[in-house]
Amino acid sequence: MDGSLNKIGPKTNPRISDVARVAGVSTATVSRVLSNPSMVSAKTRDHVLAAVTETGYRINLAARNLRRRQSGGIVVLVPHLSNPFFSQILSGIARVASEAGLNVLVADTREPEGADRQIADYLFNNRADGLIVLDGNLPESMFQPPHNDRDMPPVIFACEWVEGHDEPAVTIDNRHGAALAVEHLIALGHRRIGHIMGPRDNILTRQRADGVRDALSAAGLEADQRWFLDGDFTLASGIAAAPHWLALDERPTAVFCSSDAMACGFMSELNRHGVQVPGDVSVVGFDDIEIAAHFIPALTTIRQPRGAIGEVAAGMLLDLMRGPDKDGKPAEGGSRTLPIELIVRNSTAAPNPSRT
Amino acid sequence: MDGSLNKIGPKTNPRISDVARVAGVSTATVSRVLSNPSMVSAKTRDHVLAAVTETGYRINLAARNLRRRQSGGIVVLVPHLSNPFFSQILSGIARVASEAGLNVLVADTREPEGADRQIADYLFNNRADGLIVLDGNLPESMFQPPHNDRDMPPVIFACEWVEGHDEPAVTIDNRHGAALAVEHLIALGHRRIGHIMGPRDNILTRQRADGVRDALSAAGLEADQRWFLDGDFTLASGIAAAPHWLALDERPTAVFCSSDAMACGFMSELNRHGVQVPGDVSVVGFDDIEIAAHFIPALTTIRQPRGAIGEVAAGMLLDLMRGPDKDGKPAEGGSRTLPIELIVRNSTAAPNPSRT
Repeated sequence: MDGSLNKIGPKTNPRISDVARVAGVSTATVSRVLSNPSMVSAKTRDHVLAAVTETGYRINLAARNLRRRQSGGIVVLVPHLSNPFFSQILSGIARVASEAGLNVLVADTREPEGADRQIADYLFNNRADGLIVLDGNLPESMFQPPHNDRDMPPVIFACEWVEGHDEPAVTIDNRHGAALAVEHLIALGHRRIGHIMGPRDNILTRQRADGVRDALSAAGLEADQRWFLDGDFTLASGIAAAPHWLALDERPTAVFCSSDAMACGFMSELNRHGVQVPGDVSVVGFDDIEIAAHFIPALTTIRQPRGAIGEVAAGMLLDLMRGPDKDGKPAEGGSRTLPIELIVRNSTAAPNPSRT
Repeated sequence: MDGSLNKIGPKTNPRISDVARVAGVSTATVSRVLSNPSMVSAKTRDHVLAAVTETGYRINLAARNLRRRQSGGIVVLVPHLSNPFFSQILSGIARVASEAGLNVLVADTREPEGADRQIADYLFNNRADGLIVLDGNLPESMFQPPHNDRDMPPVIFACEWVEGHDEPAVTIDNRHGAALAVEHLIALGHRRIGHIMGPRDNILTRQRADGVRDALSAAGLEADQRWFLDGDFTLASGIAAAPHWLALDERPTAVFCSSDAMACGFMSELNRHGVQVPGDVSVVGFDDIEIAAHFIPALTTIRQPRGAIGEVAAGMLLDLMRGPDKDGKPAEGGSRTLPIELIVRNSTAAPNPSRT
């Protein structure tokens, strides 16, 4: 081994073939050690790393990325960046991606209209090494490369997902979460319970509405369709739902909202009409966004582990990006369901006896 | 002209040289018509476009972008994506960029730590055609390409800016905005007025604190340094400021917060301690984020035209990206200052006579 070093002139940049010769292995093995050390035995790894040190070989990361058509970045597709729900998920993704030396770029799939199709072009032009999708309503075409010579980068869904696709997803049990919220209201003594829903074409909306019906039905209570009000997860839609609730003949004494933003908008508008929370009506949200704990009154809600959702999604994506392991087994592609939690604060109380 | 078409075989993809021949112009002129029609006379433009139709020439956008090293996207650098202040600015940018056929990707410069340096690498690898920077505390190195053969894409600052750089900026008059807020409190009869500040190294913090002093001084009031409390624009820092305010010997009867998020956190924490807004203390915010109008009480604040800031910044960036016009004159590089407005809601009132 010692003699072989002399073949490298002092001013020549050592190349991968030099490392291979010094280590007595193929250049493919050197490449494997540098890109995916877990694919190589510890003994070979040590040989190669010693040869890297001996030759002074420097990995040209930019060139390597170019060769692999890697961009050094992952892209996260978010429906409505303005929704504060996504911020902690993005932080979780960024923490994990950053440790792997990857940038995180975020694109809004809904604003402006048509953004989803423009983004598809961008992705198929190899601008992303991987994709985390938080929007379950993307068009089907998004997942079909326009040219056969271009691969879609690996995809992980988080929170939402597109039905019929088998990309792995990180989710929570939305149906169970909604049931937890309604069970809390039932335990407080509420018997007339309303629900402000998400957008009707959204998979979370259906699952959470099912959870509401599960809990009501288990308690022998009616799921009155007039008490299921439309919303779209936004603050504005919570405000818009308030007059509909106020106009009901027989108002529910409690309302479960499918997002915290809607719950805040709903409470704000009720307050403007002199209706007290929780004195006149109890309100539960979903998500536990930052403002929930600090709204007046502080909002009872279902906490989603948002940081963990981001971290797990990024970890799963990195696994996919690394490709098959040394036995040729593809990276684990299983989906993960993370736990949720009921957080009781000041927006829920027993029903006012004069109003039940 | 008719005969020349015969030189193109029926199965050959027509090339730009075919168009040039048919139109009787140079390929450079064809290219100019297709990329920047305003640079070419109407007559030539008509000739060339007729030739494009005649030959069936299709512009290969992907190849064109590649040749120009264009990515088809602009990148927006945001400090703390979780700050709801940025959402409407991003929407404004996306509206304008989308009309120009450009994607918008957003990167957080602060989370996780060191993200700013990773992003710099990405940008210098020609991943962005242009850059809108909303972070005035980026490291100097960000603006110095690591290699001479790589150009920094054009940059526009918005909201914040890096002092000593001459990139054009879209801003508001922060000093005037803070003065407006304090003048409103003075007009209500307040004489002891406190201020919760942004991060000390932030340019907005200094300008707004100056505006507070301007207004106090103009009214012959004291700017008591003990009433200038630390914050960092976040909700959490507004919460953290509350105990400091509560511990003051002689509390101000009104507090101007340098962000709405801080104002909401401050009001929330005061409420937990049984202190009423505006009964016990008046609170003014800055920004007019979405929740401001719907917090309880609704927050008096200084409205920044956030959508317009985004639109103007994107428009200025597109001008820079188009480069010099046909007379060789560079695109307008001037900065713009957009108007702000005091929005009076329910968090401010005359001081309680028993407490002044």
